[in-house]
Amino acid sequence: MSEETPKKVPTILAENIAAQSRIFTVQKQKLEFSNGTQVTFERLLGSKNGAVLIIPLLDDDHILLIREYGAGVGRYELGFPKGKVDPGETWKEASIRESQEEVGYLPEQVRLLDSVSLAAGYMTHYTHIVLATGLSEQYAEGDEPEPLEVVKWHLSDWHKLIQHPEFSEGRAYAALMLILKERNYI
Amino acid sequence: MSEETPKKVPTILAENIAAQSRIFTVQKQKLEFSNGTQVTFERLLGSKNGAVLIIPLLDDDHILLIREYGAGVGRYELGFPKGKVDPGETWKEASIRESQEEVGYLPEQVRLLDSVSLAAGYMTHYTHIVLATGLSEQYAEGDEPEPLEVVKWHLSDWHKLIQHPEFSEGRAYAALMLILKERNYI
Repeated sequence: MSEETPKKVPTILAENIAAQSRIFTVQKQKLEFSNGTQVTFERLLGSKNGAVLIIPLLDDDHILLIREYGAGVGRYELGFPKGKVDPGETWKEASIRESQEEVGYLPEQVRLLDSVSLAAGYMTHYTHIVLATGLSEQYAEGDEPEPLEVVKWHLSDWHKLIQHPEFSEGRAYAALMLILKERNYI
Repeated sequence: MSEETPKKVPTILAENIAAQSRIFTVQKQKLEFSNGTQVTFERLLGSKNGAVLIIPLLDDDHILLIREYGAGVGRYELGFPKGKVDPGETWKEASIRESQEEVGYLPEQVRLLDSVSLAAGYMTHYTHIVLATGLSEQYAEGDEPEPLEVVKWHLSDWHKLIQHPEFSEGRAYAALMLILKERNYI
């Protein structure tokens, strides 16, 4: 056990694309660690601008969640509105757009709370967690295959949310924890 | 806005492998939603048995974290010990093995707190969050390219942890939230 000390990141000896599909890119990286060990890793390259996860705060104590089919897990998932930051877009613009498309509210203010990774070991992906406040009803058409169900949740019921079988994403826990801290619930 | 109602999951019309590398498999799925809309999604197939994330509880108020190079994010990441559940292994066996390999402690008890997804929309991956208690020092050799740094953290310092620039994984937030709840810190 030790105190944290800065450690030299491994040297990249080589990198190339190992596989590619319409939306996924796998990169192979040959690395040399500071102790001389050489390892070849594969990692998924995320979109350069990352994604946003929006916490729509309806009033001091209520957030808005969505129920959306998750093709990864093969069932409906209860979580926060999310989306990729499109090319040329800022995280602010993406947050404002996605809020309107996914929950039907235009935020007056958006503020970056934190940015989280999905799997630090093998994904470059980052998701920016954005607090959206000053909400007024204003829907914009998105690319969803069906209308999303919007669910209002009282922050004091956070225990029920983390026990909910449809609330499963690690980054949704992160967002919940950050808003609970922000609103002094924890 | 509505109360939660059960919704029929889309019908899978077709699925096939779209890309494959040494460790990643991308599946293409053609789905039909209950409103008749047909969409083709790509999703990453995770390993069948999932992964474990272990919360090694050293005493009532201290957890053990590791600092490990994260090839995805390209820097050292501070987080919980983790690993894939190997073929033929249970989550219990994987947790006990990884505890010894990554933090050098053998747990007397392991208990499943929850299971989290990474990205419900496009990854099938699940990570089982396991509380490990009754720790005694016992190291086992793993496949790490360099020795891992083990960091002892007081649970009351959780605010500092979530602000730490090297603590970035969504699922690590989930694990932290669960252990804080378990130990009545929140």
